[in-house]
Amino acid sequence: MSNAFFSDLLTSIAERGRNLLDGRSWSFSEASVTAADVLALCGALLSGRGEATGAVIARETLDAFARLPEAARKSFFEVLAREFGPDQAQLERAVEAFRLAPDGAAASRLHYMSEPRRQELFRRLNRAPGGTKDLVAMRVDLLKICNEVAEFALIDADFVHLFNSWFNPGFLVLRHIDWGTPANILEKIIRYEAVHQIHDWDDLRRRIDPKDRRCYAFFHPALIDEPLIFVEVALTAAMPDNIQGLLAADRALEHPEKARTAVFYSISNCQQGLSGVSFGNFLIKQVVEELRRELPHLDQFVTLSPVPGFMKWLSSGDAPPISRLEQALRDLLMTDDWLESPEKQEAVRRALEPMAAEYFLKAKSQKGRPVDPVARFHLGNGARLERINWLGDRSPKGLRESAGIMVNYLYDLEEIEANHEAFLNKGEVVAASAVKKLLRGDTRSMFSRQSPSGPVATT
Amino acid sequence: MSNAFFSDLLTSIAERGRNLLDGRSWSFSEASVTAADVLALCGALLSGRGEATGAVIARETLDAFARLPEAARKSFFEVLAREFGPDQAQLERAVEAFRLAPDGAAASRLHYMSEPRRQELFRRLNRAPGGTKDLVAMRVDLLKICNEVAEFALIDADFVHLFNSWFNPGFLVLRHIDWGTPANILEKIIRYEAVHQIHDWDDLRRRIDPKDRRCYAFFHPALIDEPLIFVEVALTAAMPDNIQGLLAADRALEHPEKARTAVFYSISNCQQGLSGVSFGNFLIKQVVEELRRELPHLDQFVTLSPVPGFMKWLSSGDAPPISRLEQALRDLLMTDDWLESPEKQEAVRRALEPMAAEYFLKAKSQKGRPVDPVARFHLGNGARLERINWLGDRSPKGLRESAGIMVNYLYDLEEIEANHEAFLNKGEVVAASAVKKLLRGDTRSMFSRQSPSGPVATT
Amino acid sequence: MSNAFFSDLLTSIAERGRNLLDGRSWSFSEASVTAADVLALCGALLSGRGEATGAVIARETLDAFARLPEAARKSFFEVLAREFGPDQAQLERAVEAFRLAPDGAAASRLHYMSEPRRQELFRRLNRAPGGTKDLVAMRVDLLKICNEVAEFALIDADFVHLFNSWFNPGFLVLRHIDWGTPANILEKIIRYEAVHQIHDWDDLRRRIDPKDRRCYAFFHPALIDEPLIFVEVALTAAMPDNIQGLLAADRALEHPEKARTAVFYSISNCQQGLSGVSFGNFLIKQVVEELRRELPHLDQFVTLSPVPGFMKWLSSGDAPPISRLEQALRDLLMTDDWLESPEKQEAVRRALEPMAAEYFLKAKSQKGRPVDPVARFHLGNGARLERINWLGDRSPKGLRESAGIMVNYLYDLEEIEANHEAFLNKGEVVAASAVKKLLRGDTRSMFSRQSPSGPVATT
Amino acid sequence: MSNAFFSDLLTSIAERGRNLLDGRSWSFSEASVTAADVLALCGALLSGRGEATGAVIARETLDAFARLPEAARKSFFEVLAREFGPDQAQLERAVEAFRLAPDGAAASRLHYMSEPRRQELFRRLNRAPGGTKDLVAMRVDLLKICNEVAEFALIDADFVHLFNSWFNPGFLVLRHIDWGTPANILEKIIRYEAVHQIHDWDDLRRRIDPKDRRCYAFFHPALIDEPLIFVEVALTAAMPDNIQGLLAADRALEHPEKARTAVFYSISNCQQGLSGVSFGNFLIKQVVEELRRELPHLDQFVTLSPVPGFMKWLSSGDAPPISRLEQALRDLLMTDDWLESPEKQEAVRRALEPMAAEYFLKAKSQKGRPVDPVARFHLGNGARLERINWLGDRSPKGLRESAGIMVNYLYDLEEIEANHEAFLNKGEVVAASAVKKLLRGDTRSMFSRQSPSGPVATT
Repeated sequence: MSNAFFSDLLTSIAERGRNLLDGRSWSFSEASVTAADVLALCGALLSGRGEATGAVIARETLDAFARLPEAARKSFFEVLAREFGPDQAQLERAVEAFRLAPDGAAASRLHYMSEPRRQELFRRLNRAPGGTKDLVAMRVDLLKICNEVAEFALIDADFVHLFNSWFNPGFLVLRHIDWGTPANILEKIIRYEAVHQIHDWDDLRRRIDPKDRRCYAFFHPALIDEPLIFVEVALTAAMPDNIQGLLAADRALEHPEKARTAVFYSISNCQQGLSGVSFGNFLIKQVVEELRRELPHLDQFVTLSPVPGFMKWLSSGDAPPISRLEQALRDLLMTDDWLESPEKQEAVRRALEPMAAEYFLKAKSQKGRPVDPVARFHLGNGARLERINWLGDRSPKGLRESAGIMVNYLYDLEEIEANHEAFLNKGEVVAASAVKKLLRGDTRSMFSRQSPSGPVATT
Repeated sequence: MSNAFFSDLLTSIAERGRNLLDGRSWSFSEASVTAADVLALCGALLSGRGEATGAVIARETLDAFARLPEAARKSFFEVLAREFGPDQAQLERAVEAFRLAPDGAAASRLHYMSEPRRQELFRRLNRAPGGTKDLVAMRVDLLKICNEVAEFALIDADFVHLFNSWFNPGFLVLRHIDWGTPANILEKIIRYEAVHQIHDWDDLRRRIDPKDRRCYAFFHPALIDEPLIFVEVALTAAMPDNIQGLLAADRALEHPEKARTAVFYSISNCQQGLSGVSFGNFLIKQVVEELRRELPHLDQFVTLSPVPGFMKWLSSGDAPPISRLEQALRDLLMTDDWLESPEKQEAVRRALEPMAAEYFLKAKSQKGRPVDPVARFHLGNGARLERINWLGDRSPKGLRESAGIMVNYLYDLEEIEANHEAFLNKGEVVAASAVKKLLRGDTRSMFSRQSPSGPVATT
Repeated sequence: MSNAFFSDLLTSIAERGRNLLDGRSWSFSEASVTAADVLALCGALLSGRGEATGAVIARETLDAFARLPEAARKSFFEVLAREFGPDQAQLERAVEAFRLAPDGAAASRLHYMSEPRRQELFRRLNRAPGGTKDLVAMRVDLLKICNEVAEFALIDADFVHLFNSWFNPGFLVLRHIDWGTPANILEKIIRYEAVHQIHDWDDLRRRIDPKDRRCYAFFHPALIDEPLIFVEVALTAAMPDNIQGLLAADRALEHPEKARTAVFYSISNCQQGLSGVSFGNFLIKQVVEELRRELPHLDQFVTLSPVPGFMKWLSSGDAPPISRLEQALRDLLMTDDWLESPEKQEAVRRALEPMAAEYFLKAKSQKGRPVDPVARFHLGNGARLERINWLGDRSPKGLRESAGIMVNYLYDLEEIEANHEAFLNKGEVVAASAVKKLLRGDTRSMFSRQSPSGPVATT
Repeated sequence: MSNAFFSDLLTSIAERGRNLLDGRSWSFSEASVTAADVLALCGALLSGRGEATGAVIARETLDAFARLPEAARKSFFEVLAREFGPDQAQLERAVEAFRLAPDGAAASRLHYMSEPRRQELFRRLNRAPGGTKDLVAMRVDLLKICNEVAEFALIDADFVHLFNSWFNPGFLVLRHIDWGTPANILEKIIRYEAVHQIHDWDDLRRRIDPKDRRCYAFFHPALIDEPLIFVEVALTAAMPDNIQGLLAADRALEHPEKARTAVFYSISNCQQGLSGVSFGNFLIKQVVEELRRELPHLDQFVTLSPVPGFMKWLSSGDAPPISRLEQALRDLLMTDDWLESPEKQEAVRRALEPMAAEYFLKAKSQKGRPVDPVARFHLGNGARLERINWLGDRSPKGLRESAGIMVNYLYDLEEIEANHEAFLNKGEVVAASAVKKLLRGDTRSMFSRQSPSGPVATT
């Protein structure tokens, strides 16, 4: 019952932010602002005056920054990078002290003396109502020009450091997104969906309203109306092998109480300003927990994932040398009409399956990790590569990126810890034996619906 | 309207925390736990395994710590202090790099290389449901024994650093506390009131339920059911000069629409584990804003504050040499029966007033700041010392600490910034002229109800 | 603060209803249901068994009714009309007693003895979770066939009586509908808009999201997710004279703080099952109150209303005999190309203005009330007819219904009581003098923007 | 998720009510008010003016009534009784029409023509913000003097009729009351507890905060901050036989997951103005449902109930003639020292047990129903009398009312319907065989802890 009390807390936060946004546009004079103006305010904020006035100067600073012309923002960041570092004299003393006696106390002092004043600036800016949102937006501005000035990376490191602290998973709130969610949130779900586009409100409704569909998002109490990341889930009888069937408008509804499988078929980050702050791992695990609590019959948690890097890798020099036959098939593939005849399809399939297995199980980036970014994400979370689905995505994008191949990653709660460690420490890609067999050219069971016989690790 | 959506967010947080608390006591085996067990879990949490399992290991670690016997906690902290610092080799390389080229990039690298692994540990522990609360409690455990081992100060510095980031005022929520507040919160208001004790629920009700009384508290979204700091406010016609009248059960009610003055008569911090994280300044300013919005007629924001250090200072060697007359009066004061006769009262008053002015305006600590901690707080916030109230607090505590003297600090929004800077930069104690005159021995207008003629700064 | 406690109350209601709706489809066997089955359940509900089992039989009865084939519903209502009236013997005794001694006690007894058992049945059905919604739906079923059997009017009278009691304005809740409102509510706003169609979600957003637009709806705590009635409001500088300009996608935004006029341009009832229960009057007055509180600068509350009956009246025999010139113009009007030339427009205008004034000020229905239903509503609420707007609605519907004429009704809070009484008791149509002059053929000031010189009553 | 939207609804109601209450005291002039003033307002409200002004006149009327001196209220009610009945002429016509053709239509017309204008008055008064609360309070005023004027019963019948419609169980909301409930609600729980007094806030906390204790209340959306009825529940291993043990401050806590029995040990109505509107039956059944959902292991729902009428009955002439031995024992009982010796206790027990069985199973009121009001309530709900507990309540009140005897009523969901019908239709008191045996003088198993062998009905 006391939840009601706490539920009011966030109402307060939200109102504070909203009042602010309402007021801002009128309260501000129309005169132009320069980088020097904003920097002067930053200086005041870091000085004693900032202490006394609470959040007022912080608010003014952020408002002034928002009105800076683009070019002036670059100037602003340049000064931020160069003149808002640590106090050089103090830092040098701390360095010398550490060299004389490199103990814990000296290291600690070194740490605090080397903190760039930018960080304290950002913390003070965050005191403003709506400050967090504005700081995330400020980083978006920075990222646009981050490559133009080397020192901008220092500012960005400070942003990432602070945001990782502030957006600690312990502070995030998981929300079920459904047809009763406010329209302003749903509008952002439509906009931010990055994997399988949501075309309009009807399409959205098909993804969140039926009983066998779920959508969950992480929110942060200080970022009103803004999902951070969301995942779309389908409840099905068995592990699905293609996305068009899963999303078909005329598909049969699954009774959620009878579903055995939860399929994570789309995960999208929403905040560019929070790139480098990782939420996906926690989101998936918290949603698994939530679903198990609600639907105890669920016993299989899988993804239906794209393979965004496959075709690029195939056409790059990184793929292994291939036979003339394979080359011919790949030429065929490029012609785009191979889908029209079963014979061509079958020929392509036979050529591509082993390549896909190679791509997942053997191909490595320069850092020695899987080439595919989605694979890195799920394998890094402790999932195993469960199945390669031939023609899992027949959309133009799917055919272009991966010749239509999709994969399932399986989250087996008993194994994710071991899988994760094997992946992290030894670079092992844990995969089902069927995937492994494919590598050897034995593709018989590959695209069938039979459940694979068990995990096989491949280094 | 969408506030409702966000108000649900915190409900989720609260429930998550509460489920956890419910479950914890049964879910845990009764076997004893050692510091080594907890440290092993900390190690796992910092390793890859912690990544994979989300919040599970974090939760186990905090649960295990909670079951550590007291002695084992000390052992745990010792290892934490000594072995969870930064990576020494990397740090030394960063130091050398900085010495070769002491630029921003090297300083930044130095900063991140010198971060103690404790901080990352605390951030990962915070991922557990209810983690923030447990970390604040862990610091309480640390503070109890902080003096026993020098390196414990390093851990504490890390706690303070993180808590200052996490409890940034931008993340706090101001709540009006009234008779409709959940009992579990009100119970804590009773318990944490540190200035003028709340005796029971009836006493509490007299402070929060009448229309001319207010109470506001800061909450943090991740600390369910826990006020961080609260302030009690009385709405009055004029600036009050004594606390007993203000709190009398049979006082006349003031119509809030007619009140001109808001009196902050008690501010209490609630969380020992957050000492060193400062909320009071922001609380007062946000409450002033809130009250002005609701009651536009209010035009005076003052405190009625204790003077906790006066008698101690008076009896210490720090007070200035005094005449034999004054000495006699002070002897009288010690006899405790001076309150019984008007003559003795008057004699004491004449002797003490100049001393009180001296105490506030001239006396300095070794750091050159006012001796009185309450004065340091309000003057540091930019308030000015408005009036010294003779016999403002006739309670045993009031007489013991300050011979019954109380003071009003005035928050004049037009001046707080200038006051604050004068105080911070030049050590000026901004005070009303009446207080200043008192110093010169001219006490005629001092304890009258007349409003003072204006501020006078005294160095 | 305790609002949070109460805000939880409705959450409970909503959940109860929703759980029910979820469960219903599975919990019920698929066997067919007959009117006799439902009537048997009704009997049980009215007997003692209904008392004992709380809401269970009520729920079963409503579920069974929902599964009745359409024809069976008619049979069900026939029995309800004929056999669920009052106890005839008791009623006759009460009649005789009243005749012997027609005092208050006898009248009271007569009243309670004559209550049809249907009413108690409906009250008991309402005990079921979700019962209110189902009863409103049951009346929709009844209304479809109400004309087929004379006695059905008796059932309907009982519904109307109960719903008027249950949906008492004191139990309704006014909600601001905006872009943060849950999508399932907004979807219904789109669907139920009856005056100026909302074409899609973008169109909806233009009506509720901009700062100078508002939408308010009444809800009842027991009817989850269902608006009862809503009104759309535009904040403008002056009283508008046409709807296309008001709703134009590219119109200039009005700053809400500067707007002087609130325009109610669309009011739609949502629940067919609640026809005969009047909400509009209360809605308008509560919204006026709400707007005045929020925006004290508003000093004019008007409608921009359609004239749905004008053309029908004009072409009926009810309109007054007209001259040959007028006849020619009306013929022109029917040709539909008069809009294309200014000359023809002007000719039509001159002919139609006096007719419109006649329509509003003189024409009466058989009951002696204004012919126009919208006029009856607003005049009955105490508004005055403020202006007739030539070509206020150029949409096909507007041209078809009223040759494009729209009107403004003005809600002057000082006068609504007197206006209402004059209208109710004496049949007076209170109208601005400009409208009145139009009647006399003096149309000079009619369609100008000048504010009319004052109200003139016309009998 | 959309629950949040609806949870806001009630916040609105609550605020509306609260603003009203705040404002009322100042907005009203201090001049005295007479019954005639209030009646004039009532007349206006029933006339057209009331329609036009929405809730304003309703509010004024209720405010004026609240300021009426007590004597004036009586005058007011007298006019209400005599002059706010139905329209006599219309009623007489309806009576004649019915006599000519006593069909459904005529009966319906009779019903609506005989409705006292009071009912419409009350419905219109209810439109005022806070109106429901004031009407409930108005009935409290009426009940105080209801016996003084015969016609007041007519007004009361109208109140009861309306309140039964408005407070239909379908509109009530069940809330769990715990230590996180707002203090203003908890204060009322303390005040309204009518069975086992709650002494202070600590006592309250012992009843609602421990995991094995629950408290549930019904609320109505329009009655802010006011519980209607509440029940206190203990979760125990077995059916308890005495209240002192159940409420002991030092009792052992029961793990709620392990408890098999839910004990309803106190049910209290809160609103005197709603007497005659029955909530208890629904409350118990809804709480049973709630508990079963949360704690599926619970398989026994019983009460531990007082026997308030036993001693009164015993000392009245209604008890059966008793033997000299019994008389002696009863004399002993009156001496009050029989508790001090086991022998006397045993003697008393042997004498009283059969009398208690007689009291429950045989004794009837003039209406042929059980003498004990608590028995009537639970038996009427379909519970069965499960056990008579010797010395179940050793409090002064318990000894005075029932010589310390308490009973358990068992709610067996499978049987309550049949029990209820047997009780209602045939007057059967369904009781366990052990209770029945007691009647025959076979008391061996009576006060043991053994579970009784099964229900036995006794006429």
